[in-house]
Amino acid sequence: MALNLMQLNDRQGVNHTLEEKLMAKSAIDKLFNPKSVAVVGASRHSGKIGHAVLYNLVYGGYRGKIYPINPNANEVLGLQCYPSVLKVPEEIDLAVITVPSVLVPQVMEEIGQKNISTSIVISSGFKEVGGEGAKLEREIVEIAKKYGIRFLGPNCFGVIDTWNSLNTTFSSQSPLKGHIAFISQSGALCVAILNQGLMEKIGFSKFINLGNKADIDEIDLMEYLADDPQTKVITLYLEDIRQGRKFVRTARKVVKKKPVLVIKAGRTEEGEKAVSSHTGSLAGMDVAYETAFKQSGVIRAYRIDELFDAAEAFANQPIPKSEKVAIITNGGGVGVLLTDAASLNGLKFARFSQKTIEELHKFLPPFASFRNPLDVTGNANEEVYFNAFKTIINDPNVDGVITASLPLQIMDERKLAHLIGEVATQVKKPVIGCFMGGEEVEEVEDILRKYNIPNYTEPERAVKAYAKLVRYKKILEELNMEENVVTFDVNRKGVAEIFKKLREENRTRLTEIEAKQVLENYGIIVPKYRVVKSLEEAVEAAEDIGYPVVLKIVSPDIIHKSDIGAVKINIIDEKKLRVAYQEIIRNVKKHAPKAVVHGISVQEMVPSGIEVIIGGIKDPQFGPLVMFGLGGIYVEIFRDVAFRVTPVSEREAEKMISEIRGYNIIRGVRGRTRGDINFIKETIMRVSQLLEDFKEISELDINPLTVHEKGGFAVDARMKIKY
Amino acid sequence: MALNLMQLNDRQGVNHTLEEKLMAKSAIDKLFNPKSVAVVGASRHSGKIGHAVLYNLVYGGYRGKIYPINPNANEVLGLQCYPSVLKVPEEIDLAVITVPSVLVPQVMEEIGQKNISTSIVISSGFKEVGGEGAKLEREIVEIAKKYGIRFLGPNCFGVIDTWNSLNTTFSSQSPLKGHIAFISQSGALCVAILNQGLMEKIGFSKFINLGNKADIDEIDLMEYLADDPQTKVITLYLEDIRQGRKFVRTARKVVKKKPVLVIKAGRTEEGEKAVSSHTGSLAGMDVAYETAFKQSGVIRAYRIDELFDAAEAFANQPIPKSEKVAIITNGGGVGVLLTDAASLNGLKFARFSQKTIEELHKFLPPFASFRNPLDVTGNANEEVYFNAFKTIINDPNVDGVITASLPLQIMDERKLAHLIGEVATQVKKPVIGCFMGGEEVEEVEDILRKYNIPNYTEPERAVKAYAKLVRYKKILEELNMEENVVTFDVNRKGVAEIFKKLREENRTRLTEIEAKQVLENYGIIVPKYRVVKSLEEAVEAAEDIGYPVVLKIVSPDIIHKSDIGAVKINIIDEKKLRVAYQEIIRNVKKHAPKAVVHGISVQEMVPSGIEVIIGGIKDPQFGPLVMFGLGGIYVEIFRDVAFRVTPVSEREAEKMISEIRGYNIIRGVRGRTRGDINFIKETIMRVSQLLEDFKEISELDINPLTVHEKGGFAVDARMKIKY
Repeated sequence: MALNLMQLNDRQGVNHTLEEKLMAKSAIDKLFNPKSVAVVGASRHSGKIGHAVLYNLVYGGYRGKIYPINPNANEVLGLQCYPSVLKVPEEIDLAVITVPSVLVPQVMEEIGQKNISTSIVISSGFKEVGGEGAKLEREIVEIAKKYGIRFLGPNCFGVIDTWNSLNTTFSSQSPLKGHIAFISQSGALCVAILNQGLMEKIGFSKFINLGNKADIDEIDLMEYLADDPQTKVITLYLEDIRQGRKFVRTARKVVKKKPVLVIKAGRTEEGEKAVSSHTGSLAGMDVAYETAFKQSGVIRAYRIDELFDAAEAFANQPIPKSEKVAIITNGGGVGVLLTDAASLNGLKFARFSQKTIEELHKFLPPFASFRNPLDVTGNANEEVYFNAFKTIINDPNVDGVITASLPLQIMDERKLAHLIGEVATQVKKPVIGCFMGGEEVEEVEDILRKYNIPNYTEPERAVKAYAKLVRYKKILEELNMEENVVTFDVNRKGVAEIFKKLREENRTRLTEIEAKQVLENYGIIVPKYRVVKSLEEAVEAAEDIGYPVVLKIVSPDIIHKSDIGAVKINIIDEKKLRVAYQEIIRNVKKHAPKAVVHGISVQEMVPSGIEVIIGGIKDPQFGPLVMFGLGGIYVEIFRDVAFRVTPVSEREAEKMISEIRGYNIIRGVRGRTRGDINFIKETIMRVSQLLEDFKEISELDINPLTVHEKGGFAVDARMKIKY
Repeated sequence: MALNLMQLNDRQGVNHTLEEKLMAKSAIDKLFNPKSVAVVGASRHSGKIGHAVLYNLVYGGYRGKIYPINPNANEVLGLQCYPSVLKVPEEIDLAVITVPSVLVPQVMEEIGQKNISTSIVISSGFKEVGGEGAKLEREIVEIAKKYGIRFLGPNCFGVIDTWNSLNTTFSSQSPLKGHIAFISQSGALCVAILNQGLMEKIGFSKFINLGNKADIDEIDLMEYLADDPQTKVITLYLEDIRQGRKFVRTARKVVKKKPVLVIKAGRTEEGEKAVSSHTGSLAGMDVAYETAFKQSGVIRAYRIDELFDAAEAFANQPIPKSEKVAIITNGGGVGVLLTDAASLNGLKFARFSQKTIEELHKFLPPFASFRNPLDVTGNANEEVYFNAFKTIINDPNVDGVITASLPLQIMDERKLAHLIGEVATQVKKPVIGCFMGGEEVEEVEDILRKYNIPNYTEPERAVKAYAKLVRYKKILEELNMEENVVTFDVNRKGVAEIFKKLREENRTRLTEIEAKQVLENYGIIVPKYRVVKSLEEAVEAAEDIGYPVVLKIVSPDIIHKSDIGAVKINIIDEKKLRVAYQEIIRNVKKHAPKAVVHGISVQEMVPSGIEVIIGGIKDPQFGPLVMFGLGGIYVEIFRDVAFRVTPVSEREAEKMISEIRGYNIIRGVRGRTRGDINFIKETIMRVSQLLEDFKEISELDINPLTVHEKGGFAVDARMKIKY
């Protein structure tokens, strides 16, 4: 049995009908492409936000109708003013709200009555100020729901669409037209990026600030932008994702159409504190985000410059066929820096064909390097450099080129930029520039830009941008593979009963025996065991199971059993058993006199094997995550583990096993015994199914899962539920 | 017994007398501070390098005497021309050579005869072109040695001293005056940095290109710049270090006076190939460089922007008292990015005092964060922001501030920059700016620069620069601790005899027994063993040693003994011994019939313990390095190891042990047995002494060294020598 990942139920979101989805889409389309816009709170006083927004609409080149709304004015900026949207005689596609927060609920009501589908709430004073503000925010969400209004914000900077010349923000500037969509959760960062983008001549298709995300969020916008013809790459700055599973599901679809790049701030503990203090939102653990991004093919950046460096590459250059790149330079130093960075970022150096090498020998000095990276030396002028460039980019082994140049006197870099540009636009291979130097390089960059070649004056930045093109190529390959989620025949009812009993007893923590019963119900093999209430029963059980055995206390109140001497292993005969039993009873009486005791479990002592750990946690945003790693100190000290958001497909379970560094230990390198990888894989998938079926499980540890050449055992288990 | 690290003998360099050192110093001083300069090859034709160099001297503001040397001219640029330096009637401090390479030996002869102490060979066509060029380079080195001339280059860009207005390069521009000295092994990179530095307004004290480093190298220059009053920070771009041990020794002294920052290119295998192809120099393994930099307190950067970001911080700001920083911002998003970066770069967040928090409450809105990082919110104008800044920088818990600002309409950033600058110059705490935005920010940066506050528009760059100030503070503390290198009483002669025998037998690889004998001579305990030639001898030996024992073949030709069944462990009695002995003989006859066999060793089977590895390798540039790590898979898979250049002091040996991630295993966390750390430390130091004493050891592995609660054993050992 196999079902597709896309059939995943959304735990948090609502299942929309097709009609609702189409409506939502057109409502979001009106954010960028409205036929008419009302500015509620349009002011005559420059300096006011309501004035600036109107001004930008009127003078920014927007060609639709504009309705200023202000009960205290007849006319603003030469346009007739209305006291309320209800008084506007024509249809309104989009309402931009700039009035003080306390007035917004009333405005929202009127917008609903007027049947306006889409709104942008620029006004601040909502959740971000806490208390009364948060209440106001809940109020407007309710009103919007009642009327089916979709809205952006509140507390947001608005939206800019460069291709429609629509600027609903109060910014005095608009970004340059281009193919990068930018969605930011921080409004202030929008302003900074807008300014910086203008200076660095970065072109944007859409520029969006999410504000408090009370309604429209990054998922809605990603989905919309996936089909936006002007957008070639979607970039995001996020501080949280509230609908984690929906994000993953949507992103997987979007990424198949175009690359998605994200900065997720708050990746360290300190950083997370800063997030929650300033947006009041609950940030998930970073591992959940990291996992979700990886699983959905979203490329994560860690710096703002890194984000836009890559975005510029995606917006301007094709995706390479493989990681095999050629580097060409006229300065050895830069060549070495590029080479270092390329190796560290997973690029491979294309091997030049014999024909290429012969060709290069025709015009390069004998002491040049004739291999990749190619150093044409400082003696090369633009003609020689260009000949070399042309030769290598046409080599069939080369799937893309990073072209570096230092401003040497012999070289006319402007001419070189033109020559390279002409050839680059004719081949279907990415070309990334690393022309270094000062003021003059700006002129060179302008020339390169005409040929859609992004240039980076820092070698590592050039390489990192190129490496992300390669990364996207690999992501596309991965996303197009089939993901089969196996559904095993399990005893779901058995588990439900165990959890029911726990709830009745008001407990959240399962005993080891209960946890093992849950696992057994899901087909995960545990060592033979029997829970006994007396020494004689223990003797009998041991005989049935067969020596050697292990004795353990069974108590919901004793978590660290070994620490108090309530576990005895390797008991080889009845005599030892009798001693061990008494000792456990004595130790429990001494160290945990008040503990509720269910009995003592007599367990089969399984042979030692490779110890791994399979675990589960529940993330508030992304739901259940499965973890896999080598057991013991590997997890403790090296944190050598892999995570996946459930459900885990067969292919992903395999990848989890192979991506940890300790994989070689499981594979049995250097004469060690090989562990049963299929057994591990199946156990991961069974745990995934368990976590999917029982969302009340908040923590789960199988530690260790002992793996043998064939099969293995869940030797110890812990589990907690939340209800 | 203890000796100081500084007494280290230099294996490669020559021991100069004090007089020679003073002479060398004044010779190098003349590179920057000559009373007179001759330009050999001074040309009348603009476009020629010999013309450009003379032009820069004449019109660059240099106030000393200038002598153009050219046999074919009477006058260049209005100055009297001489056919040879020998014809100049006055003394010459510095000769800059620009003639074709084949003429350089003759010029060098004349320079020697004229008693000129210092020269810069700009001419190219030497080692970098191979063959004849390399021969020419050796020739000029010989001539320089003969006359005691110190020279920079050949194949170099020359030197610029902004404070003396001396520009001996052919560059049409000079960098801005400042406090950063830049030494580069790549000439082309010099040109690029010069241009970029002008654009970014970075000030330099000295600008030096090393070229082929045939004589003057980075060590000479670092030593000189350590006492240069205009230089506050030394930055280097290096592709190799040829005198590794001298570099470490010198750098430790220099770093105590001022920070040294380095980019060492060629850190990956691919990168190293690129180095050797283009400079013909042999690059050492990167681990040796990494270790050497760490041990000498040199701060490594990996990007050009990172190098100069930090350099600007050092050139303009004081060193903080601790890692406790405060972050202030008017935009939450940037605050989170800064916080993430700060945590990841080892900064700590200062806790605001009660007084500070009370003060902040006076002017910040209630929904601002009142802790560190401090978000004054987008509602703060420059007055409010500044009041907050002033409050936190005066908090005694705060040792420095990163001040971030986004260009919001309510805020006049220019005014804010002035306000912050005024206060920052009065406190002795570092202040680093992260004012973001576009064109306007340049103006703001100019204002901040007046107050010596470097600004970075990328949050991570700001944090990384600040973190390097903290790093230097820690380095100074470390360097000022006493380093005791213990010298143990050892049997040096015994080891010398073993190596002598190997040389006589033309062998480079020691048998396990020989390697253990070497270790025993250096006081490292190995399990009891005896080499036997017959079964009866084996039985007798086992009885003496005591069962259980281990049997191993002793043969210089069999390296992987276990793989062919030539090791038998855990032999518990005579019967088992007899079987095992025969089996080993049989296996060796079968799998290694031609191997020379010295016998079979009967070894004590020591109890299992914590397995660690102590190793040694010899780096071509840095000499012996000691390695320490956890044994087995930890080394194989996790590369969890620490290196040090010998000799290893007591403190460093301790640090080696504690800096690996597996340290907790040795310390005995979670109920495990604790390993004898003093025993490990002593063994590291004994190995260090061995490697110091016998430079012929090229490889050494004690693997495993079994560590018990008290003491331990070198259970297995491998060793190779080179002669």
